[in-house]
This record gives sequence, C-alpha cells and structure tokens, in this order.
Amino acid sequence: MSRTSLDDITGMDGDDQFASFRDRFDIPEGVIYLDGNSLGCLPKATRERVNDVVTREWGQDLIRSWNTNDWINAPTRIGDKIARLVGADAGEIITGDSTSINVFKCLSACLKLNSERYTLMTETGNFPTDAYMIEGLAAIAPDHIKSKPVDPDAVVDSLDDTIAALLLTHTHYKTGHIRDMKAVTAAAHATGVPVIWDLSHSCGAMPVDLNSCKADFAVGCGYKYLNGGPGAPAFTFVARRHQEKVFPALSGWLGHKQPFAFDDTYTPGPGIHRFQCGTPGIIGCAALETGVDLMLEADMAALRRKSSALGDLFIQLVEQSCCEFGFEPACPLDAKQRGSQVSFRHREGYAIMQALIARGVIGDFRAPDILRFGFAPLYNSYADVWNAVDTLRDVMTTNEWNRARFKQKAAVT
Amino acid sequence: MSRTSLDDITGMDGDDQFASFRDRFDIPEGVIYLDGNSLGCLPKATRERVNDVVTREWGQDLIRSWNTNDWINAPTRIGDKIARLVGADAGEIITGDSTSINVFKCLSACLKLNSERYTLMTETGNFPTDAYMIEGLAAIAPDHIKSKPVDPDAVVDSLDDTIAALLLTHTHYKTGHIRDMKAVTAAAHATGVPVIWDLSHSCGAMPVDLNSCKADFAVGCGYKYLNGGPGAPAFTFVARRHQEKVFPALSGWLGHKQPFAFDDTYTPGPGIHRFQCGTPGIIGCAALETGVDLMLEADMAALRRKSSALGDLFIQLVEQSCCEFGFEPACPLDAKQRGSQVSFRHREGYAIMQALIARGVIGDFRAPDILRFGFAPLYNSYADVWNAVDTLRDVMTTNEWNRARFKQKAAVT
Repeated sequence: MSRTSLDDITGMDGDDQFASFRDRFDIPEGVIYLDGNSLGCLPKATRERVNDVVTREWGQDLIRSWNTNDWINAPTRIGDKIARLVGADAGEIITGDSTSINVFKCLSACLKLNSERYTLMTETGNFPTDAYMIEGLAAIAPDHIKSKPVDPDAVVDSLDDTIAALLLTHTHYKTGHIRDMKAVTAAAHATGVPVIWDLSHSCGAMPVDLNSCKADFAVGCGYKYLNGGPGAPAFTFVARRHQEKVFPALSGWLGHKQPFAFDDTYTPGPGIHRFQCGTPGIIGCAALETGVDLMLEADMAALRRKSSALGDLFIQLVEQSCCEFGFEPACPLDAKQRGSQVSFRHREGYAIMQALIARGVIGDFRAPDILRFGFAPLYNSYADVWNAVDTLRDVMTTNEWNRARFKQKAAVT
Repeated sequence: MSRTSLDDITGMDGDDQFASFRDRFDIPEGVIYLDGNSLGCLPKATRERVNDVVTREWGQDLIRSWNTNDWINAPTRIGDKIARLVGADAGEIITGDSTSINVFKCLSACLKLNSERYTLMTETGNFPTDAYMIEGLAAIAPDHIKSKPVDPDAVVDSLDDTIAALLLTHTHYKTGHIRDMKAVTAAAHATGVPVIWDLSHSCGAMPVDLNSCKADFAVGCGYKYLNGGPGAPAFTFVARRHQEKVFPALSGWLGHKQPFAFDDTYTPGPGIHRFQCGTPGIIGCAALETGVDLMLEADMAALRRKSSALGDLFIQLVEQSCCEFGFEPACPLDAKQRGSQVSFRHREGYAIMQALIARGVIGDFRAPDILRFGFAPLYNSYADVWNAVDTLRDVMTTNEWNRARFKQKAAVT
C-alpha cells in the first residue's frame, strides 16, 4: 500500500458528503475528539432546544406542558424516531431510563415469555453492566434464575432449551468487533431463545436492521453516537409480537393502561407503553431528540462507509508512522467486522492516552492495556485522523508518554 | 373566626420571611401556580446552570467533565445535600433514576435483608406507582414474592413476621394526610419489618427526620418541592446500617466497587454507591442540584409554618366565600396532619379545575372528584391564596365551570 500523504487527506475531506455536518456541532478549539463513542459532541441546535425547554416549556407553561408541549408522548415520539435508525417499526421502541435499567426490563420480559426457562446467558468480556444486571435479577430469586456467562466463542454452542434469554452486545465496546445479528438470532431461535441486543456502540454509527434480523429485544444508549448528552435517556426495543405477552417487572405508573385513573392495580398499557416506568426526564429527552433529529438527516449507509474509511485510515497511518512503538491492533482489521472505532493494545496504554489527551487528542483507555479511538462520522474528519496519528507519533518519539507516566508515579508515591 | 380581608393578606405577605425567595423563581405573568406539588417552578438560577452544563461542561469539556466538572460524583454530592433536608446523614442518599425505579431498589433490598420473608405490603389508595412496583417485583418470582395491599387504617394491625417490607407514603398525594413516621416505623420494627417511606410530597415542604425516626429506606421525587424540573432525578435513602447487607437487584455498572475495572463479575460498591445503577443524567442532575441548593437556604421549620398558614388560609377562605357551592374538604383540617396542600371533593371537580386553569389558577384534579391545590412556600404568597379562592368563587358564581363542562361534553360527542 502506498503511503498516504496530507494531500490525500485534504482530498478525502473535500469529497466528504458529511463535511457540512461538522459545523452543526460544537467542537472545542484545539481538540481532536475521538471519543464520540463514549460521549458524543454537542449539536449546536441542542443549546437552543434545551434552553427553550427550560425557559419556556418548564418556566412559563409549567405543568400544562405535559399536554401543550407533548411531554407525555416524548418517550414514544423519540422512540419512533430511533426506530428509523435501527430498522424497527413505530411503536416498537420507547426511550427513557438508563441502558442498565432497560437491560433489566428486557431480561425480566424474557423470563415472562417462557416461564419454564430460568437461565440468562451472556458472554464474558461483554460490557460489564449487561452481565451485572443479570446477576442482580438472578439474585432476586436465586433458587430459580441463573446467570450463565460463557466464552464469546462458545455462545452459539451453549444455546439450549434451558436458556430464557441471550444478551449480547452488537458492537463490542473494547474491540469494536461486530456480531452477526441475523445469524446469531437465527441460531438462538432454533433453540427457542430470544436475544437481547445491546446496540450502544452501533446505533447512529451503522445501519442496524432489527426486524429483518427477527430481533426480539434491544437496548441502546443515547449519549454516544446519538449525541444526546451526558447520561441521556436510553431506549428499549421490544418486537411487537412479544409486547403484549409480557407483564413488566418494572411496572411503574406511566406504563399503566390508564395512569391518570390512579387505580390500585396495575394493568399494563398497550404495546410498547408498558415498558415505560416512571416520569421521563424531559430536559434529557429534549437533548436526545435534537441529537436524533440531526442523525435522521444522514444517510446511514453512507455514514457507515465514511466510518469504515476513517477506521481504515487510522490503522493504515499507525502502521505507516508508528509501527516501531509496539502497538498491536485490538480490533478487527477488516472494516466489515469492525464498529466505528479502532483499538490498540500497548502495555503503557494508560500513560500514552494521558499524554495524547494533554495534547488535545481525546480517545480513551480501557483497562488493562487498550487505547480506544472512536469515529463519529457526522463530525470527525479525515484530518482528525491524520492529526491524531501524527500526535501519537510525536508523543512516542518525544517520550511525552514516559514523562506522563513518570508524573503519574510521582503523584502516587 | 372573623372574616379575613385583603388588608389582612397584605399584612401576611409583608411579614413573610420568604417573600424575597419568590423573585428567584420564574412565575409566569397572570398565573397563580398552586401545582408545585406536581411540578415545581423554575428557579432563575437553573436557566444559567443548565446552559453552563450544556454549553461549557458538555460542549467544551466533553468526556473530561466526568472528572474536571465532577459529574461522576453528582449522584452522591446531590444526595448529601438532600440528606440535610430530610434528616439523613451524608452517605445515606443517592440521586438518580425515577421514584418508581427507586421504590423497586428499596423493595428488592428489603427482600435481601430478611431472606425468610416474601410479602411486600402497602396501603390501598397509595400513590399507584408504589403498589405497581410491588406487583412487578412479585411477578418475577410469583411462587415466592407476594403483594399485600391493605386498607390504610389496617396497616399497623396487619404487620407480622411474614412481611419483608412495608411501603408507605409519608404525605398522601390526594388527601395530604401525613403519616406519623416515628410511630409507624416503631410499630413495624416491633415485628421486624423495615419501612420504605415515599417522601415525594414531603421533602422540601416540611421537616423530615429520617434518622430520628429510625427509618430504614426512603425514596423521593426531585420535581415537586425540590424544583428540579420535569422528570428530575429522584433519590434513594438507605440507612447506613442496611447498606452493606444488600446485594442490589438493579446492579448496574456504576454501582460496582470499581466500575472502570470492567470486571466480569459484580462486586457491590461501598455503602450507598451500590444503589447507583446506570450512567446518571447529568443535565437533569444539574437542574435538580440548583433547586436543592435554593431549598437549603430556607429554614425548614419556618417553611413548614408558612406552608401550614397558606393551607389554613385557603380552607378558611373557601369556607368564608365558597361554602354554598358544595365543596367538601378532602384533606385534614388540622394543619399538623396535613402536607403542603389542600384538597376538596366536588362532583364537578374536573370541570371546575378546567375553568380555574383557563383563568390562570393552576391546581390539579385527581380522579374521581378531587381538586388539589399545592403550596410551595418558597414562592407562593398569601395573595396567591386569596386570588385563587376569589377566582374559584367567581368561576362558581358565573357558571364558568358549567360552560367548561358543556364544551367538554360537546367535544366528546
């Protein structure tokens, strides 16, 4: 492969159909932000939208806003918008609560779908909250409900008719490896196992087609590629065929068929409504909706092509200019198998990332030794990648990372 | 009792030590807002605070804000502040999630405290989400966990050694009746039953002293008297003596002892930390914290005196000027037994409240026949009460409520 030059990069950015989106985000001066897979950047429109929700909708319209500003329908309205990003139908997604809470909703729903099955399976090395939520649910009825973490490579072979749910992440948070949603779902269905897909590192970064994969349940995060703000509401997908079979475990008043009847007894609401629990955080919903609206303007297939190109470029540039420093790829090199991120192992990964961040190149570190760089194709440019790897080389050749480590050790002792 | 005149009202407002607080809230022109027990008004400082969180902390500092702007500690930092309002110690309250979710956390914690007990008790007519969350939890393990709703008057007599938890609301959402926290907690403890107090209609409206009552668990709402904004994060109190005995059911990654170790296995965090679940909604936290900070400036005992006086005045004025219209008090007349609200039954309550709201007097209606008026002593004045009852009389004498009902029926047919 021929060397890539800065001229090439300029050409790539010149041809980028998403270039104009960058101006619609606040990107801090002097920062190359490659952590949109942890917290997405602020859409400029969100500042105004949040201010309007606070000042006018809350401040002036007050309680009336539940009707006049349609607060009451925010969870399903935003859910319907997210549905368009992940191949779901209107009425199959509701926003609200955190990804963790929504994992619990889906796990407990699976226990209801098949009352003879009590084992909840996930893979080791999954994003921890997924496994943890299984543990908590199992601990409610430890004589019945069992947690079964298995090796990632053993997932399909471990499926059997004792499994009530298989909980998997679509794009792995550390390695970026993408699971084949259609194949795994089909394999699980062959033993009657519903699958819960965690889309946190997929939604907004690539096309996802839940219904064509016959997905059962899914959850996803609002604050990564959807640019919904820190701790944004998450979302829950429940395939329509399952919705009314489930008596929800987190049966809060807004999931009731008639919340304002104030009945003593819970009657689940229709369809996806029963997966709502308490009162939704309206300010957070407004920020999330603005991010989702912006994402809906983008062609997801083209976005994916840019995402893959950014990742390929990063890997190529590391090989081209940093190969002597001992970085080992910790992500698939084949873009088709890789999410919108790259990761590299380095035993001094923590110190190196600290040095990069001090220079304004923001990625993140995942223990024990992984440097992770995420690409948000709506606002990241090819120049971002060039400059990031250029800074990485500089940090390594000038020993800045070693000084960062030295300072860190000095601070500890 | 002698008639109260507008001059008397002017004198009361002149003597009000909280009068200056009113200017620190946005109160819409032409509105008399008596629904702060449903959604508190917007503190002016919150506009700026939310804007700063969005624009600077999220927009500029991005992911670094978890450390540099102390996002990571928001749930315990705000919890410690709320603790000062409800007689808890630092380290006993964590904010986050909704009241409903937090009820679930407490109920499931009680099941852990005593693994021989499986019955979860509440009173009929409680705020529905409390009963509903019991139903959902019981449905996870229906052979074991039982829901036991009992008549409000039968609560204490129904306590026995099968009860794993007693879930009660401190101030009733409809009637405003206040339970004797100390006496009920003592009675429950006599049979080894931990009590979960729902403080949604108490916190920020009156002194609450959880620890002097030997309370076990409590939850509360951020968007009522704490003025935290629509769907604000709620809070969870767990008495220190119970915290480390509990393996949480909602065991999300931020409740882990070392969230950033990304272990496969859940190890509960120390103390109250283990009752955190997913990533907190930071914008909502910022709004809540601003409301709580404002509340912390107020003397709670004096606030309670004003709250009682506002309620007494409302009842007196209704008696004085509206007694011919068939309103029946649905709240205790004795202020000591009454929260920061009054309520009246009227068979045309819905239409009357609609007519009041059309005139800018905002209370709310609770099915089937209750008009509810809440008093937020930080910003409600005695003139608000005078004007509200004056408008109520006007609505009744001019038959506006009847016209509102007529229109409503016309719209339905």
